[in-house]
Amino acid sequence: MALVVKKFGGTSVGSIEKIKSVAQRIIADKDPDDKIVVVVSAMGDTTDDLIGMAKRIVRDPYKYPREMDMLMSIGEQQSIALLTIALRSMGQKAVSLTGSMAGVKTDSVYTKGKILDIVPTRVQEELEKGNIVVVAGFQGANEKGDPITLGRGGSDASAVALAGALKADVCEIYTDVDGIYSADPRIVKGARKMKEITYDEMLEMARLGAGVMQLRSVEIGMLYNIPIHVRSTFTHTSGTIIRGEYTMEEKNAIVKGVAHDTKVAKIAILGVPNNPGIAFSIFTALADAHVDVDMIVQNVRNLEIKTDMCFTVGLDDLWQAKPIVERVAAEMGADGVLVEEHVAKVSLIGAGMLGNPGIAAKMFGAIANQGVNIDVISTSEISISCLIKTQYVEKAANAIHEAFFPSKEV
Amino acid sequence: MALVVKKFGGTSVGSIEKIKSVAQRIIADKDPDDKIVVVVSAMGDTTDDLIGMAKRIVRDPYKYPREMDMLMSIGEQQSIALLTIALRSMGQKAVSLTGSMAGVKTDSVYTKGKILDIVPTRVQEELEKGNIVVVAGFQGANEKGDPITLGRGGSDASAVALAGALKADVCEIYTDVDGIYSADPRIVKGARKMKEITYDEMLEMARLGAGVMQLRSVEIGMLYNIPIHVRSTFTHTSGTIIRGEYTMEEKNAIVKGVAHDTKVAKIAILGVPNNPGIAFSIFTALADAHVDVDMIVQNVRNLEIKTDMCFTVGLDDLWQAKPIVERVAAEMGADGVLVEEHVAKVSLIGAGMLGNPGIAAKMFGAIANQGVNIDVISTSEISISCLIKTQYVEKAANAIHEAFFPSKEV
Repeated sequence: MALVVKKFGGTSVGSIEKIKSVAQRIIADKDPDDKIVVVVSAMGDTTDDLIGMAKRIVRDPYKYPREMDMLMSIGEQQSIALLTIALRSMGQKAVSLTGSMAGVKTDSVYTKGKILDIVPTRVQEELEKGNIVVVAGFQGANEKGDPITLGRGGSDASAVALAGALKADVCEIYTDVDGIYSADPRIVKGARKMKEITYDEMLEMARLGAGVMQLRSVEIGMLYNIPIHVRSTFTHTSGTIIRGEYTMEEKNAIVKGVAHDTKVAKIAILGVPNNPGIAFSIFTALADAHVDVDMIVQNVRNLEIKTDMCFTVGLDDLWQAKPIVERVAAEMGADGVLVEEHVAKVSLIGAGMLGNPGIAAKMFGAIANQGVNIDVISTSEISISCLIKTQYVEKAANAIHEAFFPSKEV
Repeated sequence: MALVVKKFGGTSVGSIEKIKSVAQRIIADKDPDDKIVVVVSAMGDTTDDLIGMAKRIVRDPYKYPREMDMLMSIGEQQSIALLTIALRSMGQKAVSLTGSMAGVKTDSVYTKGKILDIVPTRVQEELEKGNIVVVAGFQGANEKGDPITLGRGGSDASAVALAGALKADVCEIYTDVDGIYSADPRIVKGARKMKEITYDEMLEMARLGAGVMQLRSVEIGMLYNIPIHVRSTFTHTSGTIIRGEYTMEEKNAIVKGVAHDTKVAKIAILGVPNNPGIAFSIFTALADAHVDVDMIVQNVRNLEIKTDMCFTVGLDDLWQAKPIVERVAAEMGADGVLVEEHVAKVSLIGAGMLGNPGIAAKMFGAIANQGVNIDVISTSEISISCLIKTQYVEKAANAIHEAFFPSKEV
């Protein structure tokens, strides 16, 4: 007997036919004693269609985020009802629950909610009755009972958090790729599927742009120590398991993978008077607007009177970040603000890299050999990231990957 | 200052453009101090589209009524979000609430729920903040929190019940007709719009097939003594007000209108042994299946040993009613069951008719003059109904209307 949370994303339930296949697969994979919770996203383009309707009323409907959440949360409600009907029509006991009904308690940051707690009483009751419990991902409710959507990666976060609250044996994330690769297989030819990866390394991969899993779900998995199995909806082969420790055979690899992220923008504030509290003012203002900041670098110039500060933000957040930074920069008497949209980040990830200084040198060498300039470097305990021009990202990622994972002889 | 509940049906919010017009009208009609609650249905074909998706999974998705309610309740949630976005984009403070959030408590009869109570705490809080409160009609939640849809006429019922719970001054039902007519204007040429009608008379009209208002909403209005103003979404003229008593000028009319209903079927049980408890067995079995029964007539024949019993049910309920009646008839040793689908009911409605026996005679005469046979007659305190063949319904309704509301000379 196992308690398993399975999450199927929007492409996995993108049509009525796919919903039927997902239902068949869930039933085929279920042992009689298994307790199964299924978390689903909205069908394919449903969320975009709903946003499109709102945009026909007003150009920027996100000015009314509470109402956008009321609107968008129906996408998942549609999926859970249809998937449950499919399961029941195949003779399987099943019941659907919205995020709110499943006990997903969130803060009140509409369209970007965070899960504060999960009280899965109803889920447990329905499991005890022998039901497969189908839960709407991407959503919960705040203390008033308003529907709140969870923003990017929200459905994965729902699934992993629910697995944590239920003390599940594993959380299976079904997606359109068959696991986590040592680099993005769409651009790096030799990319290899990993059998296992630790939470720490996966966090670093996610933070640095590996698209398969979002940071937040991996963090939740780590917090509750729930193994996350990332695998394909369309094949039965095993994918990649994210967990706390390696099993023996995987333990020796230091460098785990190469990640890249083209959806970044660089913001540089030039000639900032070097007073205490400057970084605090800028990053507090950005945090208040829920803009995440990365790769912060500060260079002192000009006889230590003025400094240049540079950092990256997500490209999607740039429209929000730019006016904030310009306002704060003006207030503090900086010389100016420069924005660069055509930058990308390539990163090398692996626990234990700090103890191996040769690794950084090897990475910089691989980039230099391609004739590519490195704009900004930042390091963490388990990663090294370089900001380069977007046009060179494919070249650089392949060169780094080849340096650490040489292609096998043919 | 007035507290008004306004209900807009599916055709009134059938497109983004119509949603915008409804928002404009609500704002234009609002005095600064008015407190406004708006109840809306799903947009046009949304509910049908959702049912269509479920039918692509399984032929009869209503076998899973809980899941159908989970699915169908999203139609109204879409409308409230979009209408609220429209109101807010026009500068009006507004907030959307699902039926559950508005405190609509129902029983657990999925797809045909009844409102048990309304606890409109959240609605009142939002009104106090100066919001127009946009509430999803047609839905509530049972004690577990499962979404429950309210079946036919459910959105009107939501609106009137909410008006009752809030002690509103009036409940305005916006629809595609401009009021209640003395007969269906689509088939009776001389049909006249009424300024006022009492709850009792409207109940009788609704029960007997006048389509504009369903029984249940009028009953709720009567219970809470909330005036219901039935009016057009598309014009600004006043419609028909349903209330407890007439104002002076309307008081004298005895006959108020002619109703007809072609969606009926006659079921006759022939040769029933005339024992006590027979009617009880049949009608209990039908009530358990939530089938409403009307026009019950029992004739004694055959030296009082056997009796014939005949009654009508809604045409939509016939598939459900027929096997039940056949089973019970067999159990009680009846000779057989006859079903007749091509029947229609024409009715005359008005308080005080019982005290005027000439009225019934005049009605029967009008029908007879058209050469139409009357199959079954039933009377109530404020109505007389005749069952005739469907093909004659237009002829009969026009003749009765002309007899009581003679056309004005041109």
